Amino acid sequence: SRSIDLAVIPGDGIGQEVVTEGLKVLSAVLPQDVKLETKEYDFGARRYRATGETLTDADLDSLKAHDAILLGAIGDPSVPSGVLERGFLLKLRFAFDHHVNLRPSKLLPGVATPLAGQPEIDFVVVREGTEGPYTGNGGTIRTGTAQEVATEVSVNTAYGVERVVRDAFARAQARPRKKLTLVHKNNVLTFAGHLWTNIFNSVAEEYPEVTTEYIHVDAATIYLVTDPGRFDVIVTDNLFGDIITDLAAAVSGGIGVAASGNINPARTYPSMFEPVHGSAPDIAGQGKADPTATVLSVALLLRHLGYDAEADRVDAAVAADLTERADLPPRTTAEIGDALVGRVTG
Amino acid sequence: SRSIDLAVIPGDGIGQEVVTEGLKVLSAVLPQDVKLETKEYDFGARRYRATGETLTDADLDSLKAHDAILLGAIGDPSVPSGVLERGFLLKLRFAFDHHVNLRPSKLLPGVATPLAGQPEIDFVVVREGTEGPYTGNGGTIRTGTAQEVATEVSVNTAYGVERVVRDAFARAQARPRKKLTLVHKNNVLTFAGHLWTNIFNSVAEEYPEVTTEYIHVDAATIYLVTDPGRFDVIVTDNLFGDIITDLAAAVSGGIGVAASGNINPARTYPSMFEPVHGSAPDIAGQGKADPTATVLSVALLLRHLGYDAEADRVDAAVAADLTERADLPPRTTAEIGDALVGRVTG
Ligand SMILES: CC(C)[C@H](C(=O)O)[C@@H](O)C(=O)O
Ligand SMILES: CC(C)[C@H](C(=O)O)[C@@H](O)C(=O)O
Repeated sequence: SRSIDLAVIPGDGIGQEVVTEGLKVLSAVLPQDVKLETKEYDFGARRYRATGETLTDADLDSLKAHDAILLGAIGDPSVPSGVLERGFLLKLRFAFDHHVNLRPSKLLPGVATPLAGQPEIDFVVVREGTEGPYTGNGGTIRTGTAQEVATEVSVNTAYGVERVVRDAFARAQARPRKKLTLVHKNNVLTFAGHLWTNIFNSVAEEYPEVTTEYIHVDAATIYLVTDPGRFDVIVTDNLFGDIITDLAAAVSGGIGVAASGNINPARTYPSMFEPVHGSAPDIAGQGKADPTATVLSVALLLRHLGYDAEADRVDAAVAADLTERADLPPRTTAEIGDALVGRVTG
Repeated sequence: SRSIDLAVIPGDGIGQEVVTEGLKVLSAVLPQDVKLETKEYDFGARRYRATGETLTDADLDSLKAHDAILLGAIGDPSVPSGVLERGFLLKLRFAFDHHVNLRPSKLLPGVATPLAGQPEIDFVVVREGTEGPYTGNGGTIRTGTAQEVATEVSVNTAYGVERVVRDAFARAQARPRKKLTLVHKNNVLTFAGHLWTNIFNSVAEEYPEVTTEYIHVDAATIYLVTDPGRFDVIVTDNLFGDIITDLAAAVSGGIGVAASGNINPARTYPSMFEPVHGSAPDIAGQGKADPTATVLSVALLLRHLGYDAEADRVDAAVAADLTERADLPPRTTAEIGDALVGRVTG
C-alpha cells in the first residue's frame, strides 16, 4: 500500500492558516489506499525567540526522513531581517540541494490582474536555488564605520548551472510551445553571464525542437508587463528568479495564488513546497489569507511524488474556484479551503 | 556671456536619430545669449570594429573638458555582449564618478500604459551608479570546463552608499510628498543590505520631514504594477536600480519616453545624459525611433547646468505632445522633434 510521509512547517503569520487548508485539500484528493502521515514542526519566529535556534543539524536529520515538506511562511517583524531567511529558508534549500525552484504563472480567465486587456499568461520559471548571490559569500570590513566595505559574492558553477538549465530544457521540451528563455544580465555580469549563456547554448544543441531566446533581466521585466504571453519556460539565476517571479505572480493573479516548489530532482533529499507569499503578519489569525497559493503548492507536491491525476484535480479545482470568484462575496481562508475540498471530491 | 560646451555621442543604431532631435530641441530652447558648442564623438560599435577600441585614456581626457555629455545609445549585435557595455558605458560612468543615476517616471494623462485603470505615477529613482555588482570584480577559474566557477562581486562602501542616500534624501525633501523608499534585498544580501539599511536609517534622522520606508526588490516589482502611486523617491543599488527602472519605464509610458542622467553632483567630471532605451538596431535608420526619451534627457541636462526654466519648458512641451499623441497619426523621429521644437519656441 502506498503512503506519503509529509513534514509540515506552518511557520509564522498566516502560515498556519494556509497550511491547514492545503492539508485539507491534500487529504481529500488522495486515493483511499494512500496513507497520509504528517508531522508538524514548530520552526520560525516563535522558536527563534524562545531558543535562539533557526534550523539545527538535528532538525535537518528529522526533516530528511520525510518524503516531502509543506511550508506555510517564515518571517516576523520581531526577528531582525535576514535571520530566519538565511538561517532557516535558505539554509534548508541549500542543505537539501533544492536547485530547481519551480514557479508557474498562469492567468486564468476572469482572474484580476493589474494589466490592461487580460493578456494570456502561461509560463513557468525555473529559478536556480542553490547558487548565485544567495550563497552568503561575502562580508564586511571596518563594519559600522565610515570606511566600511561590504561585499556579496555571486557564486556560479558549471555543475550548478548545467543541471538547472537541463531541467528547464526538459520542461520546455515537454510543453506544447517548446520555448525556453534564458534571463540574465550577461552584458554587465560578464563572468557569470558568459557561463550561463555558454552552457545554455551548448545544452540547446541537444534540444533542436526547443526554440530559445536570451533576454536581459531588465528587459524581461518590461516584457512581463507588455507581452507576458511571449514566455513559455524561463530559466534564470537565483536572484533574478526571485525578482521576476514576484512580478510574474503580480501580473498573473497576485501572490495569493503563486505556488512554488523547491525541488531536488535527484531525490537525494525531500523537496519542499511553499507559497511564494510571505507570512503577512498584518492579516494573520483573521481568516483573511488566501490559501490558494498553498493549495497550488500541494498540487506541485503531488506531481513531484508521482500523483499526476490528483495534481490535475487540484489544479482544476483551483481554476474553477478562481474563475467563479469574481461573482462571489469575499470568503474566509477556511471557506476557500472547503470549497476546494468540495471540488476535488465532487 | 554664457555658454554650454557639450560632448555628443550619438553611438549605435537609433542613437544618431534621437540625438539629432535632442540637439534641435536644446538649441531651440536656449536663450539667445547662451552659446551652444557641440563636439561629436564617434564611439560605439563602428569604432570598435574598425580599431578594437572602446574608450581610451585620450578619449576620457577629451570628454573631461566638456560641460556635459549627451549620449544616444551604445550597442550592436555585431559586438559580443559586454564589450561595449563594460568597455564604454560602464567605463565612462565609473571614470567620471557618475554615482547618481537619476531616472524619473511620470505617467502623463492619456499616455499608454500596460496597467489597467491609468494609475497616477510620478516618482524618481536614484540609482547608485559606481558600485554594487557593476564593478566588474569577480572572475572565472577552470574557464570553459565542466569545473568552471564564475564569481561576481558586489562591492558596496559606506562612502559610496552614503553619498547617494544623501542625494536621494535631499531630492525627497524638495518634493511635495517628501517620501523616500529604500529598495534592496537585505534579508538575503545581508552584508550589503545592512550597510545600506544602516546608512539609510542614520541619514533619515537628519530629515525628520521625510517619510521613509524599506521594500525588498522583489516586492517592489509587485508594487510597481499594483500600486505605483505609493512611490515618490526611490533609492537603490546599481543592479536593482537597473531592473526596476526598466519596469518603471514600462508602466509609465514605455522606454520610448524614459530619460536618465548619470550625474556627478560634485561636478568633478561632466555628467552624462542618455535615454534609458538601447540602440534598437531593428528599427535604426528608419525614422521610427521616438526621440522623446532623449529630449527628456536634455531637460535633465539643462536642469543639471542650472537652466531650470528651460528644462521646465522642455518638460512641458513633451507633456503636451504626449497627451495629444493618442489622437495623432504615427510620426517620424524628426516630426516629433520638430513638434517639440515648435512647442518650446512657441
Ligand atoms: C524570503 C526570501 C528568502 C525568499 C527568497 O528571496 O528566495 C522569498 O523572497 C522567495 O522568493 O521565496
Ligand atoms: C546597457 C547596460 C550596461 C545599462 C545598465 O545595465 O546600466 C542599461 O541597461 C541601463 O540601464 O542604462
